[in-house]
Amino acid sequence: MKPKLDDVAKLANVSKTTVSRVLNKRGYLSQETIDKVYDAMEKLNYQPNTVARQLYNKKTQIIGLIFPTVTNPFFGELVEELEKKLYLQGYKVIIGNSMNDPEKETNYLNQLLSNQVDGLIVGTHNRNIQQYKNDNLPIVAIDQIMNEDIPIIESDNYLGGQIATQRLIDKGARKIIHIAGPDYLNTPAQRRRNAYEDTMEKYNLEPICYTVDFNIPYKDKIQIFNRMFEEQPDIEAIFSSNDLDAAIIMKLAKNFNKKIPEDILLIGYDGTQLMRTIFPELTTIIQPINQISSKAIEVLNDRLESKETLKEYILPVTLWEGSTS
Amino acid sequence: MKPKLDDVAKLANVSKTTVSRVLNKRGYLSQETIDKVYDAMEKLNYQPNTVARQLYNKKTQIIGLIFPTVTNPFFGELVEELEKKLYLQGYKVIIGNSMNDPEKETNYLNQLLSNQVDGLIVGTHNRNIQQYKNDNLPIVAIDQIMNEDIPIIESDNYLGGQIATQRLIDKGARKIIHIAGPDYLNTPAQRRRNAYEDTMEKYNLEPICYTVDFNIPYKDKIQIFNRMFEEQPDIEAIFSSNDLDAAIIMKLAKNFNKKIPEDILLIGYDGTQLMRTIFPELTTIIQPINQISSKAIEVLNDRLESKETLKEYILPVTLWEGSTS
Repeated sequence: MKPKLDDVAKLANVSKTTVSRVLNKRGYLSQETIDKVYDAMEKLNYQPNTVARQLYNKKTQIIGLIFPTVTNPFFGELVEELEKKLYLQGYKVIIGNSMNDPEKETNYLNQLLSNQVDGLIVGTHNRNIQQYKNDNLPIVAIDQIMNEDIPIIESDNYLGGQIATQRLIDKGARKIIHIAGPDYLNTPAQRRRNAYEDTMEKYNLEPICYTVDFNIPYKDKIQIFNRMFEEQPDIEAIFSSNDLDAAIIMKLAKNFNKKIPEDILLIGYDGTQLMRTIFPELTTIIQPINQISSKAIEVLNDRLESKETLKEYILPVTLWEGSTS
Repeated sequence: MKPKLDDVAKLANVSKTTVSRVLNKRGYLSQETIDKVYDAMEKLNYQPNTVARQLYNKKTQIIGLIFPTVTNPFFGELVEELEKKLYLQGYKVIIGNSMNDPEKETNYLNQLLSNQVDGLIVGTHNRNIQQYKNDNLPIVAIDQIMNEDIPIIESDNYLGGQIATQRLIDKGARKIIHIAGPDYLNTPAQRRRNAYEDTMEKYNLEPICYTVDFNIPYKDKIQIFNRMFEEQPDIEAIFSSNDLDAAIIMKLAKNFNKKIPEDILLIGYDGTQLMRTIFPELTTIIQPINQISSKAIEVLNDRLESKETLKEYILPVTLWEGSTS
């Protein structure tokens, strides 16, 4: 059983109010008392919970954002929207680029648990981080399945995967390859892959997936895609689960004397403003960054006010009709 | 004259120690005392200074980063590098995307002055923000001239502008247009423009500049570039002061039946990893993001420890030889 404020008070031989005052750094406290309370918390592995925080309604007005990297345009634009909207509500944001590093993610999470931020919006998830298992944390996940209790905001990944695959089939492609994210991440984005596989099966076509972690260096991605072109000389179409990979593939295709869309049809995913501007020709599935960020903040506010929320919010995707497919 | 802690103490009719305790929320204080001190600070427009903060050595271990937008790949990669390196030194980062909005920038700055962050790294500057005029603030500027006292980290903008312009001239272009940032911003990046103008003059060529604010929506940029193509039908080369604009120009050139590099030579600026990967053909000047971020943190640490620093640190640029010029 999780240790409670009560247990800390008993072990430290002080009142509950004193423990709260230590946690919230309020009122006069002797160093001896502070040390006793911290010793007890350490012995019990006690993490201050939201109730303890709310006892004094001590707010930092800071929201933590944990995403893999802002250098990916999708996360960059999402973080920017979140920051802009949270700022208008009086919040500042702490940003952690976790690069799917469990230690770093744990560290940022402990910050929440020790009252340095009011809430978290998380777009990354390393499995088996114990701290997420605490109840009722003011956390909202974007595109990540964390646990039973943490609400998820996502766009309609299954529909997006279906639209993309169907478009390539409608345009006559049969040998269609899907570039997917790594399958060790437990994310709704995997539904793009499910939709691809289901749609291929419906037409009796063989699904072929290459998995690429979006956090690896560009040169490693290039190596994987070069290998793909070598292994699949009769490739007719590619559905890439992000636009950056699609852009890299467009460049590499030339080296293999493949023209897009004449020889290979291509469709991407994400449809950020950046990519739609510098690669307007790339057909892609647009995720609604504006709606995702608004909904995430709305649901986080509900959690902060201990209101009921749904478990999952699915927002609509749209098609950007470029010329690559 | 700036009000001092002393003045606050006198007006509030309390000791200096009491004012410090109020500022640092230390020890037992009656609500009456707290109110008196805050009233006096307000009347005097007193801003707690670094000395008051250091009195109790109260550190937040948070560094604020204020940049125009992380959706521009240069700032995105720079912010990511800063966050990664600061994290390793035990700091968290608060990020503000100021979009050159003076009100928002002032708000973030007041956060520093009221002890919510230990220091700031600023890559944006709206003129006439009063707060920057305080002495000895733990602030470091990247590519921005703020005031006499705040050290600047930058790459060699003049050399970059010179290399770019010289390359276009060496390749035979005479009618060379420069796309510059807005001239109301007081930034060392304007030296790229100076170098362009000096180099053109050296060859008796007429400099032609179009200024584009990088914070405006993409559709407004497209409008400016379309107008440029209409007004300059005999254009032979373009030196764009950032790669995003260069990428947009590459797309638009096709609409005017101009081939790059056959009809128009093109060179960009920044050379982020993202752009070098998805537009490897774009010749550009690489800013050393890794070195800029390391130096900024080193100098900020010096400021935090009240060590002397230089006024300006200039880091080397390099040329990325693509095929667009």
